[in-house]
Amino acid sequence: MEPGDAVHPSPWRAVWALPLRLLLLLLLPLLLGRGLRAGAAASSAGAAAEDSSAMEELATEKEAEESHRQDSVSLLTFILLLTLTILTIWLFKHRRVRFLHETGLAMIYGLIVGVILRYGTPATSGRDKSLSCTQEDRAFSTLLVNVSGKFFEYTLKGEISPGKVNSVEQNDMLRKVTFDPEVFFNILLPPIIFHAGYSLKKRHFFRNLGSILAYAFLGTAVSCFIIGNLMYGVVKLMKIVGQLSDKFYYTDCLFFGAIISATDPVTVLAIFNELHADVDLYALLFGESVLNDAVAIVLSSSIVAYQPAGLNTHAFDAAAFFKSVGIFLGIFSGSFTMGAVTGVVTALVTKFTKLHCFPLLETALFFLMSWSTFLLAEACGFTGVVAVLFCGITQAHYTYNNLSVESRSRTKQLFEVLHFLAENFIFSYMGLALFTFQKHVFSPIFIIGAFVAIFLGRAAHIYPLSFFLNLGRRHKIGWNFQHMMMFSGLRGAMAFALAIRDTASYARQMMFTTTLLIVFFTVWIIGGGTTPMLSWLNIRVGVEEPSEEDQNEHRWQYFRVGVDPDQDPPPNNDSFQVLQGDGPDSVGGNRTKQESAWIFRLWYSFDHNYLKPILTHSGPPLTTTLPAWCGLLARCLTSPQVYDNQEPLREEDSDFILTEGDLTLTYGDSTVTANGSSGSHTASTSLEGGRRTKSSSEEVLERDLGIGDQKVSSRGTPLVFPLQENA
Amino acid sequence: MEPGDAVHPSPWRAVWALPLRLLLLLLLPLLLGRGLRAGAAASSAGAAAEDSSAMEELATEKEAEESHRQDSVSLLTFILLLTLTILTIWLFKHRRVRFLHETGLAMIYGLIVGVILRYGTPATSGRDKSLSCTQEDRAFSTLLVNVSGKFFEYTLKGEISPGKVNSVEQNDMLRKVTFDPEVFFNILLPPIIFHAGYSLKKRHFFRNLGSILAYAFLGTAVSCFIIGNLMYGVVKLMKIVGQLSDKFYYTDCLFFGAIISATDPVTVLAIFNELHADVDLYALLFGESVLNDAVAIVLSSSIVAYQPAGLNTHAFDAAAFFKSVGIFLGIFSGSFTMGAVTGVVTALVTKFTKLHCFPLLETALFFLMSWSTFLLAEACGFTGVVAVLFCGITQAHYTYNNLSVESRSRTKQLFEVLHFLAENFIFSYMGLALFTFQKHVFSPIFIIGAFVAIFLGRAAHIYPLSFFLNLGRRHKIGWNFQHMMMFSGLRGAMAFALAIRDTASYARQMMFTTTLLIVFFTVWIIGGGTTPMLSWLNIRVGVEEPSEEDQNEHRWQYFRVGVDPDQDPPPNNDSFQVLQGDGPDSVGGNRTKQESAWIFRLWYSFDHNYLKPILTHSGPPLTTTLPAWCGLLARCLTSPQVYDNQEPLREEDSDFILTEGDLTLTYGDSTVTANGSSGSHTASTSLEGGRRTKSSSEEVLERDLGIGDQKVSSRGTPLVFPLQENA
Repeated sequence: MEPGDAVHPSPWRAVWALPLRLLLLLLLPLLLGRGLRAGAAASSAGAAAEDSSAMEELATEKEAEESHRQDSVSLLTFILLLTLTILTIWLFKHRRVRFLHETGLAMIYGLIVGVILRYGTPATSGRDKSLSCTQEDRAFSTLLVNVSGKFFEYTLKGEISPGKVNSVEQNDMLRKVTFDPEVFFNILLPPIIFHAGYSLKKRHFFRNLGSILAYAFLGTAVSCFIIGNLMYGVVKLMKIVGQLSDKFYYTDCLFFGAIISATDPVTVLAIFNELHADVDLYALLFGESVLNDAVAIVLSSSIVAYQPAGLNTHAFDAAAFFKSVGIFLGIFSGSFTMGAVTGVVTALVTKFTKLHCFPLLETALFFLMSWSTFLLAEACGFTGVVAVLFCGITQAHYTYNNLSVESRSRTKQLFEVLHFLAENFIFSYMGLALFTFQKHVFSPIFIIGAFVAIFLGRAAHIYPLSFFLNLGRRHKIGWNFQHMMMFSGLRGAMAFALAIRDTASYARQMMFTTTLLIVFFTVWIIGGGTTPMLSWLNIRVGVEEPSEEDQNEHRWQYFRVGVDPDQDPPPNNDSFQVLQGDGPDSVGGNRTKQESAWIFRLWYSFDHNYLKPILTHSGPPLTTTLPAWCGLLARCLTSPQVYDNQEPLREEDSDFILTEGDLTLTYGDSTVTANGSSGSHTASTSLEGGRRTKSSSEEVLERDLGIGDQKVSSRGTPLVFPLQENA
Repeated sequence: MEPGDAVHPSPWRAVWALPLRLLLLLLLPLLLGRGLRAGAAASSAGAAAEDSSAMEELATEKEAEESHRQDSVSLLTFILLLTLTILTIWLFKHRRVRFLHETGLAMIYGLIVGVILRYGTPATSGRDKSLSCTQEDRAFSTLLVNVSGKFFEYTLKGEISPGKVNSVEQNDMLRKVTFDPEVFFNILLPPIIFHAGYSLKKRHFFRNLGSILAYAFLGTAVSCFIIGNLMYGVVKLMKIVGQLSDKFYYTDCLFFGAIISATDPVTVLAIFNELHADVDLYALLFGESVLNDAVAIVLSSSIVAYQPAGLNTHAFDAAAFFKSVGIFLGIFSGSFTMGAVTGVVTALVTKFTKLHCFPLLETALFFLMSWSTFLLAEACGFTGVVAVLFCGITQAHYTYNNLSVESRSRTKQLFEVLHFLAENFIFSYMGLALFTFQKHVFSPIFIIGAFVAIFLGRAAHIYPLSFFLNLGRRHKIGWNFQHMMMFSGLRGAMAFALAIRDTASYARQMMFTTTLLIVFFTVWIIGGGTTPMLSWLNIRVGVEEPSEEDQNEHRWQYFRVGVDPDQDPPPNNDSFQVLQGDGPDSVGGNRTKQESAWIFRLWYSFDHNYLKPILTHSGPPLTTTLPAWCGLLARCLTSPQVYDNQEPLREEDSDFILTEGDLTLTYGDSTVTANGSSGSHTASTSLEGGRRTKSSSEEVLERDLGIGDQKVSSRGTPLVFPLQENA
């Protein structure tokens, strides 16, 4: 790792600037403004005569103003790009075009602007000056420069390879448009990842937790290892052919394997959402992609940390290897803990204060606490992005239940907007980077090799893992699901952010270029091919899941009482043979216990009996679940609401959260009508709840997973209130 | 202006760092993380032996990591501060404590942390190195440093006065905690100002527009001039007494007058909101404070631009003076135009696309367009903050009407949260800055003089201006209102941001310190004294204005049909003699025409007949208002909805926006019951509208301003639907 790139300078501003043809129209008033400022500057020139250094001051001031103006223009470029993207997305959605997703579109627009920037702007000289301060033998992050008696402070921005020192001045503008990689990690990724965690559909996620964990951890590791090894072969080949002269170690190949293993099937999931494809497949894909982002980020930093002792620094060293594994486990569990702890703290704060009377305060607190997770993890040397993911999951699981109705929609919408903007920004920046990034290394052999490797790497973990998982799963993962998962191996924002983070060495530059191309082609081709693929693989679509009702908050409160909104859809499709045990008409209670592993059951009952009552207003009172000698503590921690309604209140609420919230379709009471008696399920249990003194966790588990409908609904009275719009 | 401070370096990161006692508990896991990282670093040390520069790399890497960690910790400090503030605010609101506003609270917490930072942390040496590169005679914004063959790029951060070069290394931490002033202007102020514009209660604002403009423009100019002259006297006195040795010109005094003339009665307005004080007084105060922020910012930059030619650079020069005035007018009108144009473009885009089917896209577009105003203005050399203000007003007036119901609440809530966070951040930073800012100059004479000057400056524009305004106003501004306006001269975020922008010279440092103290005392003392003052001045409170119904979106659609929600409240209070012509039972139509100036009426009819129909879905069809030869154009621009309902549809909607949205109290249908027949007003006109072929603008003006209730309501059928919660 070169020193320059390791430094974290000003990501917010160390940024992009230059005149843009696209902006020509917008920039007409600029000339006027310039004239004004020039006048001001000219008149200030008079006064400056008094001071001997006035002319210098003026020059610096003008330079600073110019730099500020250029920063504004370049940010404006990106905003214009995003605006254009939004308008075209609207057009696409309006005309129901599905072959190109908004992210693909953002990349295309980025590419166009990139081409314009690259070939359409004159290569004017920059504002830099080269100082030869050779008396020091290393670079410092801060520099105090004594310029004829005055001291100026400079901060390190990065190293420039010696060959490019001259080109720096030539391509000042292009260099400026490629902005600091840390922006991705510190500003753009956190909202994306948090939103992924916060919008996780818990029920389906937890039902497939084992498989998701297997795919995410084992799968990513296998994929990383296979891609790394294949690429090492490719690199060897390139050396033989004479295409590669620079250093390219085995660890570099593994690093490439790690960063490229982070899948991001954003376009596939968007189409799943739009077509209402199978929820289990959705959960598998979404869960895998969310977690393997976390795995990939930690894996890549562990590989960077793998540094064997001794002279032969790139040979295998068991001690260093285990140290890397230790670092992986340490960082991962540390980040996980940090995220979970912040989530729990937020849940406690929102539970024990009456903040919910003031939604603005509540939303602000929620936002700050979630952000602080990121900073806390970074401050502790863990990975902020991973912490934010688990914080999001915890917030959705606990805190969300304590929020006021208004704050729920506020927080959802806030993070939805942030997520949307950040994601589209990253993708349009990717398009831009293909032409404006200065250090591209296009190596055809490496690129072709990489495409083959990621294909094989994905195949080598999806199919074997699915085979082993199917041995233990009751809901088998069918061949069509496996093919679909194989197909959905898109690469996106995370791979890009990891690749751009360090582009100091030749090997890393080659990786970056290859990653960029892989992202482009997977997003475009796979994104466009999803709809045909779905029908070709016979995967059921049109599963109407009423997961978006609480978009309309006013309907929500009626809905909640009468309907369990997240239960299995009825068996209404031809491809259903794959998931035979899936309908509510199957064997009953026994199934769930077999299906969910003992560890999940253990966790569930612990969560239900202790965590939920402590952290939220729902669940059984602690006084009934805790042993008698904890009586006082239990009474303090249990909120009074629990005694009033001893029901599993609102447990399904957080499943309401939108997953890809760019399409708000409302489905009314489709589930209620689709499945007859199931509509009255929650209502009737809540009626029972009042009479029951102690609810067994096993019973609640069954109830919550949607089993035993017939039994329960035959006793209770269906409490389905008239729906405001559909009734 | 010194060169160093004029440069705009990395505001996002050039930031704050250090261990905090408050954070001690939170930072325990840090040690663990540090251990991990140290392990990684140590193992990487082995491999580094291969390269001769490896040790340096390692050192730089570790330095960068440490710097990144410190950045996280310091940001975390601020987040913790905000979290603490939020929790305490909740407690205060919960217990109905009114003597201390949240901003005052944020300052107190900031002060406490500042004291801890200042006196509680050891003065460890920094990580800087001093290089003496004396071969150049000026500073450049970018530096290429050749360090033993490697090139490093440095960016200029600012100048350090020679006397402080040594102290820089000593107080590294404290220096870092005072972060870049441009952050305030580019990140924190825009959302605050935009929110102010977006949440303006249009009806009351426009009814008092003349007075507001007078207070904002004339008043600020008078105040600036008077304060400047008084302070010049104070400075002379200080020179005589021997308290001032450095330069302090007349222009500096005027500059101080400009920055300190920006009032920010945030605490007063919050209390007004809470107590539902008189709406006209609220409109006057809020409108004045919003606009005088804009005036102050442009005025101060015009004063900086005032640089007379010739040797005696600080004497009066007519040419330079008029140039300054020209700059003022140019920047102000330019910024105004820019903001209005962006708002209009957004309105057109939202009108002519069906974006409202996709609230997420709509919200994102709205956000981006609003932000682009800021950047566009900055890129053109205008003032982004001012442009954003007028953009907000335009968005509220036109675009808001085109948005979907969901986007309305989303945009409101988004900017509300941003505003809340930014405002509290600024105020807590102010508290912090009192102790951590390195260049304070406390001058008792100057500070006392400033307090006297701002008092006199405010008195000298409120009372005379009110006198002149009362000559033309039908609703006289009573003495109690004048006293209240006099009393509400708080200084806040804008004064601070303007003062901290340039603290290079001794004079500016003195101004900054004084501004900080003025903000503290005005916020604390005036904020605490508002409630007693209101009752002492006999200003009516408890005016129930149903301006917050559409908080509950589900009720809104019912409400809109039957009720004109923004009309005058009934005369129900003792202090009513002040506004005698205010009730709906007064003389009728004639009143409004007299009350509103002809220019306002002209604008109103132009707005109603042309702008609203072009930019929104409401108003009369253009085919009826435009001359016949524009038929084709008119048909293209008029939206089909207008023909369906030729009513002044939704014109009052944007008045719904919360002004100080930290308290969401709902008032149900209080207006409906409070004023009998007025409830059916809009509904009946909309029934009529269908029958009317051409609506005269004068008629609509009367209707919109709430006159002629009796006439209209006697003809129409009251269409008040049952309210969901109150019925």
